[in-house]
Amino acid sequence: MEKTYIFGHKNPDTDSITSSLVMTNFEKKLGNTGAVACRLGNINKETEYVLNYLGIEAPELIEKVEEGANVILVDHNSPKESIDNLDKVNILKVVDHHKIALETSYPLFYRAEAVGCTETIMYKLYKENGIEIDKTIATLMVSAIISDTLLLKSPTTTDDDRKAVKELSEIAGINPEVYGLEMLKAGTDLSSFSIDEILNLDAKKIDFKEVKSIVNQVNTADISDVMTLKADLEARMNQIINEEGLDLFMLLITDIVNSNSQVIALGKSASLVEKAYGVKLENNTALLKGVVSRKKQVVPVMTENA
Amino acid sequence: MEKTYIFGHKNPDTDSITSSLVMTNFEKKLGNTGAVACRLGNINKETEYVLNYLGIEAPELIEKVEEGANVILVDHNSPKESIDNLDKVNILKVVDHHKIALETSYPLFYRAEAVGCTETIMYKLYKENGIEIDKTIATLMVSAIISDTLLLKSPTTTDDDRKAVKELSEIAGINPEVYGLEMLKAGTDLSSFSIDEILNLDAKKIDFKEVKSIVNQVNTADISDVMTLKADLEARMNQIINEEGLDLFMLLITDIVNSNSQVIALGKSASLVEKAYGVKLENNTALLKGVVSRKKQVVPVMTENA
Repeated sequence: MEKTYIFGHKNPDTDSITSSLVMTNFEKKLGNTGAVACRLGNINKETEYVLNYLGIEAPELIEKVEEGANVILVDHNSPKESIDNLDKVNILKVVDHHKIALETSYPLFYRAEAVGCTETIMYKLYKENGIEIDKTIATLMVSAIISDTLLLKSPTTTDDDRKAVKELSEIAGINPEVYGLEMLKAGTDLSSFSIDEILNLDAKKIDFKEVKSIVNQVNTADISDVMTLKADLEARMNQIINEEGLDLFMLLITDIVNSNSQVIALGKSASLVEKAYGVKLENNTALLKGVVSRKKQVVPVMTENA
Repeated sequence: MEKTYIFGHKNPDTDSITSSLVMTNFEKKLGNTGAVACRLGNINKETEYVLNYLGIEAPELIEKVEEGANVILVDHNSPKESIDNLDKVNILKVVDHHKIALETSYPLFYRAEAVGCTETIMYKLYKENGIEIDKTIATLMVSAIISDTLLLKSPTTTDDDRKAVKELSEIAGINPEVYGLEMLKAGTDLSSFSIDEILNLDAKKIDFKEVKSIVNQVNTADISDVMTLKADLEARMNQIINEEGLDLFMLLITDIVNSNSQVIALGKSASLVEKAYGVKLENNTALLKGVVSRKKQVVPVMTENA
């Protein structure tokens, strides 16, 4: 059968990797025997923890697919976050929980919901289609929901996510609090990373109106651990600001245990952070209490104040 | 409760009107008591037949909604076919079967499938959510599917559409062949229309690569009936070509009983029709055998040959 390449976004997180695996299983159950799980980048340490826990292989690493090939996008829809030749392939389906940033010249299956994680939608698709969720699939799904919602504490969390975690944890035979914290902590191990790698872990280019910015987020179980690298991080951040002509570089160091973020803000628009959150930057840094979600608590707040 | 305005595209057809009514009922069943069925234009004769058959009112006619209001789009997603201030409102949901032409700054519920009719997706949504489909809702749904697929004969028809028509006809207590042909014929009554109105019935501006065109489609049970108006239609088509600087004006007169279209093609690129379909225009007209779908049998064929 003709191949269908199934992949999440570049710089993949646990949701992108597990959704690729879970969607591939779903397609095969529906009779699409050509479905192949793929990924557009390296596996991070959190996802590695999940795959090792289950003893399964990562999806196949690809950079692009042949012109005219069938693809299914999970956990993204923006061409900027996808394969380079997305406009030259045939998108069969999209399953995602982000804003709409795709234009097509043909109708397709598009399923998006404003929930915390793509896997919450996959969970519904399995149920709607009467497809069994086995222990491996349930573990993949619940891992991603815990990852994207930071153990259901992020403001992106919906009742649908909570319900899915409850039911999937039972099938997976895990205690979500215990398993989830172990998994999240595995993802915070920065010991093997260079400064450049840390600054690229989860970096997004965002314009807050006219303010050209990068917002990078790093999860940790202990903010002070990361702050020991502050001088080196700042030096490289200033270089990137100059190289890319940025107005602002925000590094969010997010405490996944206590649900706060320490921000390091550099660039000529750094004071926008002070205005947006009513804080005072001291030595370029401040604690943003309760802030854990870039999507819900950074982008709209910064945009409104820009 | 805050209002949620639910509407289909401008120049509404039976799918846009019935989907607005069916989605409004769906939202109310889900607890959204502020749901209001709306429309962005006049009811056509085919839709009038359906509403009269059921003895129900048309959705409320609106032109725009207040800034920041909640809306749900059915049977369209393109801002060009929607309310003028779509970028100033809060889109809660989209249910549609067209290509993706919407960009948002926030995640939302988006449900599209490459099926023949929006109501086929609504039918699935009712089932997935365990909401009862009563006789009125079933009749609205099946009417739209018959309309969009020309009694399941259009190449846009999928197995999902066929399955929905079968099950919904039983609930509605109709014979789809008999009811459907009556409904389609009601829509072909041009007696009360001016030449301008006929040329606007279902007109879409489309560029076939560099060829700036309008393609208008008129359904009929007897092509020769419409061809008695040929001289008057052509005179007005030529005026429109000059006024709008068009390269091509295609009028498709589609025989819903025998599934063919007579085309009248004017403008300096009229020969593109000859090339695309291997026909010879005589007095600006030719029969296109088996052609009934603008989306599947005109747009791609004309684009490829342009």
